[in-house]
Amino acid sequence: MDNSVFSNIRVVLVSPLYAGNIGSVCRAMANMSVSRLYVVNPRVEEDDWKNGAKMAVHAQDIFDNMIVTQSFEEAIRGCSTVAGATARDGLYRQHVRLAKEVAPELVSLAGKGEVALVFGREDNGLENAEVQYCTHLIRIPSSEKYRSINLAQAAMICLYEIFSCAGGYAPPDEKSPPASSEHRKRFFEIWRQAMLDIGFMKEDKADHMMQGFGRIFSRGIKTGDDVNIMLGVARQSQWASANKKKDAAGS
Amino acid sequence: MDNSVFSNIRVVLVSPLYAGNIGSVCRAMANMSVSRLYVVNPRVEEDDWKNGAKMAVHAQDIFDNMIVTQSFEEAIRGCSTVAGATARDGLYRQHVRLAKEVAPELVSLAGKGEVALVFGREDNGLENAEVQYCTHLIRIPSSEKYRSINLAQAAMICLYEIFSCAGGYAPPDEKSPPASSEHRKRFFEIWRQAMLDIGFMKEDKADHMMQGFGRIFSRGIKTGDDVNIMLGVARQSQWASANKKKDAAGS
Repeated sequence: MDNSVFSNIRVVLVSPLYAGNIGSVCRAMANMSVSRLYVVNPRVEEDDWKNGAKMAVHAQDIFDNMIVTQSFEEAIRGCSTVAGATARDGLYRQHVRLAKEVAPELVSLAGKGEVALVFGREDNGLENAEVQYCTHLIRIPSSEKYRSINLAQAAMICLYEIFSCAGGYAPPDEKSPPASSEHRKRFFEIWRQAMLDIGFMKEDKADHMMQGFGRIFSRGIKTGDDVNIMLGVARQSQWASANKKKDAAGS
Repeated sequence: MDNSVFSNIRVVLVSPLYAGNIGSVCRAMANMSVSRLYVVNPRVEEDDWKNGAKMAVHAQDIFDNMIVTQSFEEAIRGCSTVAGATARDGLYRQHVRLAKEVAPELVSLAGKGEVALVFGREDNGLENAEVQYCTHLIRIPSSEKYRSINLAQAAMICLYEIFSCAGGYAPPDEKSPPASSEHRKRFFEIWRQAMLDIGFMKEDKADHMMQGFGRIFSRGIKTGDDVNIMLGVARQSQWASANKKKDAAGS
């Protein structure tokens, strides 16, 4: 992961109404490794600001350090890439592209210069005058029946797509490495014998049944630990079955 | 888009704390064409429920029709696929897969049977006993510094990935079709002549300059409408330039 990619990305919220949304955007940014927030002319009511701090949760630093500007131009100053999210159609918005499609390009551009991710008003989106500044227009796919996505949700999807592209996260390796073919072979032999010993199958059906087990095991038993758990089951079955026979013989 | 895919998907929230999150999940569901919500043992305080209705905005029907159950088993009854989102690591969660990776499989499974998308508690996620029921574990990539994603945001990302895979949305075609090569050729000839007429370039530099214009135009001028706008510029430049010459001659 190239940290400079994330440090070159800023989020710009144009004249938001609700502090809760600003706070939720802060949390989404922290989740996705982006930390610079610009807010153009917030229309937040005085006693609503506390909801912003509340929704930011552990992203207080982003919330506290947001830069409030009087104009859109100030908020995007120095940016060579300005990507605006819009859900509206229209003659000047026909060149929208899907978030998934634009994200790799934005990551690449963030390696070369400043990138602004711009989100419009909760009630009215981006105005045409703002769209004109955009080098990219992003559309998040949504149902025709309810197209308008919450501001913080829209920001999250865009940030998530960028984070995913930038290789910000790789899933952890399973702690137990994949089982070797020898380990697996030994397990199949012991399992076969155990199933015979406990009377689950008879010798003449064993090959057939082992094909069925093979199918189940190939789907579910992947790691050395997985094999060892099932080996334990086989051995315990054999032991229990042998003891039962002894008990039966002894009684 | 196959509507039965969406109607076979339900969202299950396990013992959520805040009604605002439930409402936000409802809106995210409506945005992404999923409508069936199950809530297991909500811990919502009585006077907090109003925030749920508020955050659901135009997804009131989903909010009003949510099914509240006493147990997790009830909420996933009849589901052949149970996909749980988890941000926690652990021995029993090593087989998590990325949301992007699982989504196509979930769409395919929703074509054959009921699918539950399960999200855990805001404060404590899913318990191991619940994880055990899951046929799939989903991990949303996030920063190691702030891994925990808001409940409704996590639901939105999973729903968005499924909606994207299920082909729930195709970006609108641009209204003006791509410009034909003939249209483009005629435009280049007129543009060239206009640039000579207005004195922007001289004949000996024209081929070179037209290479530069070609680069700019190839990036920006895509549709028939685009070409017509720029053809208008060329013609108007020629007209203005000719008139200026006349004025100069007349004065």
